Amino acid sequence: MAKTYVIHGALRSSATYRVRIALHLKGLPYSEIFLDLGRGEHDAGSYREINPQGLVPALVAPDGTIVTQSLAILDYLDESHPEKLLLPEDRAGRARVRSLAQIIACDIHPVNNMRVRNHIRDLFPGDDGAQGRWMAKWSKAGFDALEARLTQETDTGVFCHGDRPGYADACLVPQVYNAGMTGFDLAPYSRVRAIADACATLPAFRAAHPDNQTFK
Amino acid sequence: MAKTYVIHGALRSSATYRVRIALHLKGLPYSEIFLDLGRGEHDAGSYREINPQGLVPALVAPDGTIVTQSLAILDYLDESHPEKLLLPEDRAGRARVRSLAQIIACDIHPVNNMRVRNHIRDLFPGDDGAQGRWMAKWSKAGFDALEARLTQETDTGVFCHGDRPGYADACLVPQVYNAGMTGFDLAPYSRVRAIADACATLPAFRAAHPDNQTFK
Repeated sequence: MAKTYVIHGALRSSATYRVRIALHLKGLPYSEIFLDLGRGEHDAGSYREINPQGLVPALVAPDGTIVTQSLAILDYLDESHPEKLLLPEDRAGRARVRSLAQIIACDIHPVNNMRVRNHIRDLFPGDDGAQGRWMAKWSKAGFDALEARLTQETDTGVFCHGDRPGYADACLVPQVYNAGMTGFDLAPYSRVRAIADACATLPAFRAAHPDNQTFK
Repeated sequence: MAKTYVIHGALRSSATYRVRIALHLKGLPYSEIFLDLGRGEHDAGSYREINPQGLVPALVAPDGTIVTQSLAILDYLDESHPEKLLLPEDRAGRARVRSLAQIIACDIHPVNNMRVRNHIRDLFPGDDGAQGRWMAKWSKAGFDALEARLTQETDTGVFCHGDRPGYADACLVPQVYNAGMTGFDLAPYSRVRAIADACATLPAFRAAHPDNQTFK
């Protein structure tokens, strides 16, 4: 019986990528079981016993507690291991960071994730550009909002909130990665790019990157 | 200068409705400024100074702190007023409740909210059923998931988590209201309906209902 955290995730799932970043930032050992979403492994009965919703990620804690939904997992990790907090310590700061994370997790990601993209493709057979236009529209709305919020206050540090990376950065970096994978141009979003660049230099973010995972 | 909370919201916005429920459950006095989304008041410069994202709700605290994103607001209220907690006190319970809330706030609501519905309408001019089919597809996926999670464990009480209504119920009730407004049949979701019915008997939920708001 493993005494470390186990992620049930997927290599390119950005919600899973958030959790990998969080575990590395907190220095918590873990292993990951990579589900093949293309083959429907998230829909299989064995995974549905862990998460009846059939979505990744799910985190199994050393004591057996199962937590699903990536932001709930980040909060759970902070409450379980308060030594290296992902959230700021002050209430207003925590609210700002949660709000930034939810712009990504509630307003950008759900409208552009795989199940919705696939459905748009199916709704417009023969129209190769339909999926790309859909992605571009909602990515623009989302990154516009994120950049606006990030630049609303100045002097907020190197990362999303201050000079220590955390909860919101763990959401921003996978969304920037997604933008790159789908060819969405982030040139207009200088603050977003600066934060992603700062994160990219850190070992925790490098270790969590989809390109640096090894299947055991 | 008001010394109570001020919601910048909209009458039928379910994210705003969540915040109204939370304030009533905690017994906190507030006033609400109702924006007319149909007239684009959320897009106006005056509101963008409060929330650069141009989405409702935004909550202004008595000390002037502005919090956006409905779940961030619920956490902020709990951290500011720990007397009547919306979240359970134990870590595993908090994780379960946050996960339930995020099924609604991240997986159901964003794919079916007004901006996406309107876009689907525009993508299928002349096809009166397109919007309804879109709504039904994602509502079904979402409520299937929610019902599965709610029935994964038994003996979890009258509400989403235990016998005290809170954080997840504040998300469930507006989504059930939305389902009613858009004609989505909740008959197959007996646990969801039982929770919504239990909430509907409580003064806090009645006071927060869109039909019971008065414009000042």
